[in-house]
Amino acid sequence: MSLPETVRLVEVGPRDGLQNEAQPISVADKVRLVDDLTAAGLSYIEVGSFVSPKWVPQMAGSAEVFANIKQQSGITYAALAPNLRGFEDALAAGVKEVAVFAAASEAFSQRNINCSISESLQRFVPIMDAARANGVRVRGYVSCVLGCPYEGAVSAEQVAPVARELFEMGCYEVSLGDTIGTGTPGATRRLFEVVAAHVPRAQLAGHFHDTYGQALANVYASLLEGINVFDSSVAGLGGCPYAKGASGNVASEDVLYMLQGLGIETGIDLDRLIDAGLRISKVLGRTSGSRVARARNAQ
Amino acid sequence: MSLPETVRLVEVGPRDGLQNEAQPISVADKVRLVDDLTAAGLSYIEVGSFVSPKWVPQMAGSAEVFANIKQQSGITYAALAPNLRGFEDALAAGVKEVAVFAAASEAFSQRNINCSISESLQRFVPIMDAARANGVRVRGYVSCVLGCPYEGAVSAEQVAPVARELFEMGCYEVSLGDTIGTGTPGATRRLFEVVAAHVPRAQLAGHFHDTYGQALANVYASLLEGINVFDSSVAGLGGCPYAKGASGNVASEDVLYMLQGLGIETGIDLDRLIDAGLRISKVLGRTSGSRVARARNAQ
Repeated sequence: MSLPETVRLVEVGPRDGLQNEAQPISVADKVRLVDDLTAAGLSYIEVGSFVSPKWVPQMAGSAEVFANIKQQSGITYAALAPNLRGFEDALAAGVKEVAVFAAASEAFSQRNINCSISESLQRFVPIMDAARANGVRVRGYVSCVLGCPYEGAVSAEQVAPVARELFEMGCYEVSLGDTIGTGTPGATRRLFEVVAAHVPRAQLAGHFHDTYGQALANVYASLLEGINVFDSSVAGLGGCPYAKGASGNVASEDVLYMLQGLGIETGIDLDRLIDAGLRISKVLGRTSGSRVARARNAQ
Repeated sequence: MSLPETVRLVEVGPRDGLQNEAQPISVADKVRLVDDLTAAGLSYIEVGSFVSPKWVPQMAGSAEVFANIKQQSGITYAALAPNLRGFEDALAAGVKEVAVFAAASEAFSQRNINCSISESLQRFVPIMDAARANGVRVRGYVSCVLGCPYEGAVSAEQVAPVARELFEMGCYEVSLGDTIGTGTPGATRRLFEVVAAHVPRAQLAGHFHDTYGQALANVYASLLEGINVFDSSVAGLGGCPYAKGASGNVASEDVLYMLQGLGIETGIDLDRLIDAGLRISKVLGRTSGSRVARARNAQ
């Protein structure tokens, strides 16, 4: 058994995290967060989402955030582009990488974005075309890969065709998300085994939620399957609104602590990452969702 | 890679858990907790500790607890016996299984029990003799197996001789405890690999703390090493007082949830275990430390 020597963490706190926090924060606080994350050594930061502020007030001002962050070369600053309008706004804001979102569960797709999985994938075609024409890279997300709040268990065989279609459509990487956090390590390993027959392992990422405390065990299981890209959220910001009353995204600090213990290189400074998380937690008036941050902070 | 088909959970909540909660609770509440755990299907419950209530007020009344719990056949109800006096009190209370405690770190041993590791092991000799004479089984704990609050990192080579001596002395099982929760999965696997050269794997158990969120990843890593006995604490009760401000024992519910997801049999009813944990959390006026319990309770 050999683990990857390096791992890339995709920091989703400023987007997936803040989008799922009840309280919107100022553009200045968002800019500070992204700059703190840059300084901590993250190589990929999902900065915002180009979506109507009527629907998602937490993501208002994403263009302004992009205009004010100190972008460093070699670091990816990405945005979610849920539709073509969002993609065009992202493009106008100078965004060089966007993400699109599909579900592995039909019921989730219908209730969350009001269309079938197949329809949602079709809507990405013009985005992919526009992205190609403008030299913008596209990352794909698949949600509900290990469970759905409406359908219950989701099989790897349901996930594989969705991941494959995103990949074939032009997504350079497909992130498999355990949106409700019900996955366990055996199911996680099987998921990657099955999907890897359709999408190369090097083009797959894991996105785990800690709702049931399983996220780090699932990250470790994924590492054993050769996966070396993981989405995580500083201070455990956000979470899926469908996983009621429970924590959501796994905390970047906790993933990084495990990776460091495993001797895996990430290029990230844990102390600076903890500081970034404690600062944004204070802004939100919440406790950090990172156990590592809480343990270190208490010392 | 094959995982164990069955796992035995050693429920340490009523002892290791409650001992490390600030607030002592009544004998009646302790009895109710143990009875709830029996009803949930636990096969091993560490009920109390025979230690002076001056030193550990949380463990006062352990004899009374033993006298009042509804003991079911086939279930082990154990007690901690830190010294011969404690062992004799346990024996008088009808206890059939006791646990003894040593550290893998010299500094921790000195500061925690005021003697060297070697001296602490010598003090167990009369307990082992008395146990043998009275047909009482003895389980051994080794603390600080992956880190020490005073010495920092602890090597597997430091742990092995302590585990071996406990085993050779007559402990039928030796539980390796990550007291401060700093261990990660690679170090955990190496620990069991090294110690298994001295004590058979079937006689080893894992005891993980979730202070840094690593406990379930470490349990999974241990399963991959063929370990199939784990200590855990319902509702995540307690924790090490040396791991300040942070959570301690991994929650039994969260371990069980992962084991169920892995298809591993334990004989435990998750819903009843969650209920037992929510009840004792209410008694203590605290939130359950189990993410599974919080997620289920919020639904």
